[in-house]
Amino acid sequence: MARLDVNQYGKAETRVVRLCRDTPRHEIRDLNVSIALSGDLTDVHLSGDNSHVVPTDTQKNTVYAFARAGIDQVETFGLRLARHFVDEFDPIHGASVDLDEYAWQRVGDHSFSRGSGGETRTAHIGYDGDVATVSAGLKDLLLLNSTDSEFTGYIKDRYTTLPETKDRILATAVSATWVYASDDLDFTRAFADARGAVIAAFADTYSLSLQQTLYSIGERVLSAVPEVTEVSLSLPNKHHFVYDLSPFGLDNPGLVFNAADRPYGLIEGTVKR
Amino acid sequence: MARLDVNQYGKAETRVVRLCRDTPRHEIRDLNVSIALSGDLTDVHLSGDNSHVVPTDTQKNTVYAFARAGIDQVETFGLRLARHFVDEFDPIHGASVDLDEYAWQRVGDHSFSRGSGGETRTAHIGYDGDVATVSAGLKDLLLLNSTDSEFTGYIKDRYTTLPETKDRILATAVSATWVYASDDLDFTRAFADARGAVIAAFADTYSLSLQQTLYSIGERVLSAVPEVTEVSLSLPNKHHFVYDLSPFGLDNPGLVFNAADRPYGLIEGTVKR
Amino acid sequence: MARLDVNQYGKAETRVVRLCRDTPRHEIRDLNVSIALSGDLTDVHLSGDNSHVVPTDTQKNTVYAFARAGIDQVETFGLRLARHFVDEFDPIHGASVDLDEYAWQRVGDHSFSRGSGGETRTAHIGYDGDVATVSAGLKDLLLLNSTDSEFTGYIKDRYTTLPETKDRILATAVSATWVYASDDLDFTRAFADARGAVIAAFADTYSLSLQQTLYSIGERVLSAVPEVTEVSLSLPNKHHFVYDLSPFGLDNPGLVFNAADRPYGLIEGTVKR
Amino acid sequence: MARLDVNQYGKAETRVVRLCRDTPRHEIRDLNVSIALSGDLTDVHLSGDNSHVVPTDTQKNTVYAFARAGIDQVETFGLRLARHFVDEFDPIHGASVDLDEYAWQRVGDHSFSRGSGGETRTAHIGYDGDVATVSAGLKDLLLLNSTDSEFTGYIKDRYTTLPETKDRILATAVSATWVYASDDLDFTRAFADARGAVIAAFADTYSLSLQQTLYSIGERVLSAVPEVTEVSLSLPNKHHFVYDLSPFGLDNPGLVFNAADRPYGLIEGTVKR
Repeated sequence: MARLDVNQYGKAETRVVRLCRDTPRHEIRDLNVSIALSGDLTDVHLSGDNSHVVPTDTQKNTVYAFARAGIDQVETFGLRLARHFVDEFDPIHGASVDLDEYAWQRVGDHSFSRGSGGETRTAHIGYDGDVATVSAGLKDLLLLNSTDSEFTGYIKDRYTTLPETKDRILATAVSATWVYASDDLDFTRAFADARGAVIAAFADTYSLSLQQTLYSIGERVLSAVPEVTEVSLSLPNKHHFVYDLSPFGLDNPGLVFNAADRPYGLIEGTVKR
Repeated sequence: MARLDVNQYGKAETRVVRLCRDTPRHEIRDLNVSIALSGDLTDVHLSGDNSHVVPTDTQKNTVYAFARAGIDQVETFGLRLARHFVDEFDPIHGASVDLDEYAWQRVGDHSFSRGSGGETRTAHIGYDGDVATVSAGLKDLLLLNSTDSEFTGYIKDRYTTLPETKDRILATAVSATWVYASDDLDFTRAFADARGAVIAAFADTYSLSLQQTLYSIGERVLSAVPEVTEVSLSLPNKHHFVYDLSPFGLDNPGLVFNAADRPYGLIEGTVKR
Repeated sequence: MARLDVNQYGKAETRVVRLCRDTPRHEIRDLNVSIALSGDLTDVHLSGDNSHVVPTDTQKNTVYAFARAGIDQVETFGLRLARHFVDEFDPIHGASVDLDEYAWQRVGDHSFSRGSGGETRTAHIGYDGDVATVSAGLKDLLLLNSTDSEFTGYIKDRYTTLPETKDRILATAVSATWVYASDDLDFTRAFADARGAVIAAFADTYSLSLQQTLYSIGERVLSAVPEVTEVSLSLPNKHHFVYDLSPFGLDNPGLVFNAADRPYGLIEGTVKR
Repeated sequence: MARLDVNQYGKAETRVVRLCRDTPRHEIRDLNVSIALSGDLTDVHLSGDNSHVVPTDTQKNTVYAFARAGIDQVETFGLRLARHFVDEFDPIHGASVDLDEYAWQRVGDHSFSRGSGGETRTAHIGYDGDVATVSAGLKDLLLLNSTDSEFTGYIKDRYTTLPETKDRILATAVSATWVYASDDLDFTRAFADARGAVIAAFADTYSLSLQQTLYSIGERVLSAVPEVTEVSLSLPNKHHFVYDLSPFGLDNPGLVFNAADRPYGLIEGTVKR
């Protein structure tokens, strides 16, 4: 016999842009919002009875309608949405809202250039009708140190060919998520402080391994933002290989590199307070 | 104070192709292998001491070296890798191996065409030094029903604009993962049966909601493959909107559709035995 | 002083799906249509005068409206569109229509699975009010030979490190475009014959270089389809490197390969009758 | 009978990173280099005779070897490569070098963050053994005006449903290529001036159509950089649709938008001096 276990559904990737045009100097907020709802949804799975289903199309409409009132902080916008679905509809007991925000840089009073190197600000809201948890973070923040990174002293076995190195490029695309202790704080300030801590920790750490850098980043974010209780990081090791120029009679003292695509190391970990 | 919580590391996306050329009629296996290891790794995070670290480069080498002995079933290849790392290295207590397999169709004795519409076969191995768990699945299997799908009877609120429909296109890109009760079975046969069940259930279900289709798929896989204990599915609702041709004096009785990109519904659930 | 040179505009990537439901056994056509128009468009560039502009939104509507009458052959559908815009609107003197078609395989009377490994059928229509030229082709057809490919006898200079090889994997993703001598022929049959010729030529050619394979493909298409006047091919050399297993005490007689992403060779050429 | 027409071959997407570490304050250049060579290459196509072929692997090696001497301006680096292949090898009569450069922003003496919103700087070198032509440009520069854009006065036909608008978001991802009159100038300064002109023209133009904006950009680049002889632009109209909030009893005076993916308008044109 089969039985339904955990499940959720929702509208993913609603792309909403909200302008503020109260003055000639416009503001812009550019979000990608994904919603997932759970609750008393057994009947729709077993018999196709939709009487407990808030259509994903309605969820999309709600995002646009709520945006009309303005998007202050991405986290508070997500909280409004999460609470709406759980508090408004009896069969819905849980909401999960993921928000990506794309930054635009001002190049004129009403002109903008998309900025920040592909980096995306993220937020996640979970709400169960009682407690709301708020996480924030970023993804695709590409960072590179051109020195102050070594990798030595590791286990060698019969499949080891990697030479030890005292000086290498260390590059990664940071994905970070941190959990806030409260659903009511200055999220904009907290994000800025946490983001600054990520970059500073990466740049300042003399790295003996990417794991050490990961821990340093986690530690620094916890130290910089008192409201953060834990930090989870996923750091691909974007390998830059010193290209062997010796066949051409040239030395290569850490100057010319091949930036490889695949495979890549992937270091993941969580640092808690 | 900060402290290290869960963590893992490994080499992601090692692309290994293994030929079998024992006869003039060659065989090909084409995999993308990602490994993640966990264990006694506190020191590397806190002080950069790599003495417990099996380098990700060595993991990559191991994949290629193990492929030399042949890749029989993708699941058994993953099991060999997972057991190797945990059993061989004291500080490593857990291994997670994800394998994607790309299918090639024969167009000659030693000629192949990549097949199956972007669909990828997947497997996941977890091993903790004691028990090995094996999951298998597929992703990006695009399926479409041109009728026998309705969506009615759902909750209406002030943000609802979606009209009910008795006849629509239902299309999705199936991501499915099923868990096997054993680490020793005919994985190739089980995969073929499970894949067949996914397609048959999608095609045969008169769908009142995509959730109902999800449950039908899960139920059918459990029924078709006795060794499967649970099935998890992620089904994007790839919306095909009937295009309004009335401004042009044309009717559109379910014939001309706009295939939309974003947003999309996303239905996720697990069906257990 | 500045002056306007060549220019065109249009609606790109209109995704139209057309069902045929005349019988319980449905048919499906799934296209991505891009239109570009040119003509007497100086004023819109210089002063923003849109009186000669057919909006791209109207072009999109036209695609859907024309699909209502059915999509027989993708080439004839493109011809109808191209002729419509040039013949209907005085300021429009030229139309270029690009069509991608995604194949679906039947898995039931009204159920389909997307097929053919990511391969996409393509067509291009050019029309100047007088003559219509029709091209067809395909892209992302992945082909691989596991032997019968060598690479020797090339120029060596001081930057050459590549060893000669008498046996390698040859793999590519074919992009092919062929030009038809007429705008009135059985395009469906011609496409099938040309596609078959591409695969057969790739599989049958003992290849001394990918250029030779390219020419063989072109020659075979010309031979197989009398209506084709020329064939243009773009063939990335998707490198599969024999992985060096000797550090592990293993031989590797052409069995275990690393499928590399970048860089890749790129061979392009046109073969004419 | 078949005969070979135009053809070229080369190594695409060689990813080379060059550090300058002469002082503790490092510099970084990050390029993706694609080379295509043409010449006396009939034999390799017809009979697989590689005696006129400079292997693409050698081309890759040459990129890395040349990078050892430093990458000053991306254009001069491309010129060195193009001249090398044509001047060094008799059978090679033409070289085409495409270079993408990814910008990194300094966040420390030897630490960098990838910047500029996905925007990539581009250069193209053509060399025929006699004359070298140098083009430069950029791609994926996302720009948005939140007002000062209208679209009215266009042709209406029976397929027109688009309402005229006096106020809309205008957004695009600029791809621009400009041709220099000389192969010997301050390319870095010229690029900065041209890029500034693109952004200023986009921001400053009260746009009656995207074509008008295109022409303005071309005109402004020609005006800002005397060495530029022509500018080619490809501007996707990244539609932002005012979301209809009236079913929810809300107005929407140009505040809440749906950022759509496909289809999109595509405006292309060249402006010459």
